[in-house]
Amino acid sequence: MLDNISSTKVSGGWHKQYSHQASSTHCAMRFAIFLPPDTNENNKVPVLYWLSGLTCNDENFMQKAGAFKKAAELGIAIVAPDTSPRGDNVPDQDSYDFGQGAGFYVNATQAPYNTHYNMYDYVVNELPAIISEHFPVNDKKAIAGHSMGGHGALMIALRNPKNYVSASAFSPIVNPINCPWGEKAFSHYLGDDKNTWAQYDSCELIKHASSAHYIPIRVDQGEADNFLTEQLKTENLFNVASQKNYPIEINIHPGYDHSYFFISSFIDQHLQFHHQHLSA
Amino acid sequence: MLDNISSTKVSGGWHKQYSHQASSTHCAMRFAIFLPPDTNENNKVPVLYWLSGLTCNDENFMQKAGAFKKAAELGIAIVAPDTSPRGDNVPDQDSYDFGQGAGFYVNATQAPYNTHYNMYDYVVNELPAIISEHFPVNDKKAIAGHSMGGHGALMIALRNPKNYVSASAFSPIVNPINCPWGEKAFSHYLGDDKNTWAQYDSCELIKHASSAHYIPIRVDQGEADNFLTEQLKTENLFNVASQKNYPIEINIHPGYDHSYFFISSFIDQHLQFHHQHLSA
Repeated sequence: MLDNISSTKVSGGWHKQYSHQASSTHCAMRFAIFLPPDTNENNKVPVLYWLSGLTCNDENFMQKAGAFKKAAELGIAIVAPDTSPRGDNVPDQDSYDFGQGAGFYVNATQAPYNTHYNMYDYVVNELPAIISEHFPVNDKKAIAGHSMGGHGALMIALRNPKNYVSASAFSPIVNPINCPWGEKAFSHYLGDDKNTWAQYDSCELIKHASSAHYIPIRVDQGEADNFLTEQLKTENLFNVASQKNYPIEINIHPGYDHSYFFISSFIDQHLQFHHQHLSA
Repeated sequence: MLDNISSTKVSGGWHKQYSHQASSTHCAMRFAIFLPPDTNENNKVPVLYWLSGLTCNDENFMQKAGAFKKAAELGIAIVAPDTSPRGDNVPDQDSYDFGQGAGFYVNATQAPYNTHYNMYDYVVNELPAIISEHFPVNDKKAIAGHSMGGHGALMIALRNPKNYVSASAFSPIVNPINCPWGEKAFSHYLGDDKNTWAQYDSCELIKHASSAHYIPIRVDQGEADNFLTEQLKTENLFNVASQKNYPIEINIHPGYDHSYFFISSFIDQHLQFHHQHLSA
């Protein structure tokens, strides 16, 4: 059962928000979808899943990325889930980088988080099933995200390379097991077992990836991003991808920071990148 | 003296926010400017002034309109002022459509508003002088806006046709003397004198415009806009422009509402429209 919250025409298509009771996170979840013009049962479209960063919900990308003109032109639907479970019953901390708004796209193993904080299952399984059931989409999927959501997009694509034709990220946390944001979140959600942590770390996943399952990945990173050195560590991705000959295009942009102004500057190129693979 | 609040690279150019003590509104005013790539003393650019609607400040358009790619391509700077004076000393009401965030681009004549609520002078005189002094812009100006800011853009252009090469508006309040938003604001800011009201009403100004001073105007209006019938009254603009043969292109768009999703869908066409005249 989907509750339609809003329907707004944009760039010839439609932006819609929905709420539904999610079985993976045991709470009401909200998501937004952009449907390009002329999407219908006789003209099904591929889907780009967008995962947002810390403090965001389904609205930030949809309002600020400026993605709809190009997505309308290319015929790509975009689905943006929330970044965590939400609600009065969902354990939280008074902190921008943990708890509600900061689900880190894992399945929590530790109480009190393990009932609700199962964003990995939600994004990988539950949400795509809902989208297929309720919207005129075909079976081609790509995934992208920003910062914590860039981590989510790369990690989920690396663990499920048959599900996605391509993956991309802006300013991703590429090595969460080795940065303060990731260490804080993983220790609370996942406990002490570093083997569990490694399953959610893009650098670790690339180390163990089989070249038979490589998929094309694009990463864009601003050089003036305040979080680059301490949290994002793009060079760790570069190093491990080089060693493994993983096909990751990494673009470093002088002057750009961590904001949506950076995303809006290059989102068209990401859509074009995914379009190549979604339409192949 | 301008205080630089932020500088962010976007679409190859720069988005910057400033604060300064304004003599027209007797308070600190904030504005944002987008400078396209390669703007400098040897490559001065024309300026589009953008006036926002009720409840907005300098950020809404800059974050949500998706204007920068096209503005960068066309070489147009964009300046977005706040929508009212602000601060603890500025009289306010607990109301979204009057007081702070709702200056209506008039010079108030009534106490206690007449000290600070002089957004007309600020937008027409003070701000352009500051922009010319501090940024590499040439003397070509255009003006545009949304809703209350659409009213502001059309009204200011109609009263100052030598200052602007063109004007445009999304979902403008075209006849404020005949709608609840306008009646509320004008009665508090301007008192009972309907002659004063008429000086701030686009339909009245067109009635008395001299064809020697007509400038090109474009208006876009969503047909699914909840405010169309009661507040915006686009048909009044159409009627008076027809009677006067005023060169106003009015585009009605089925399905679109009053939101920034509408603006983002057609902002490129507005920029292209102004570019024709700014580069002539």
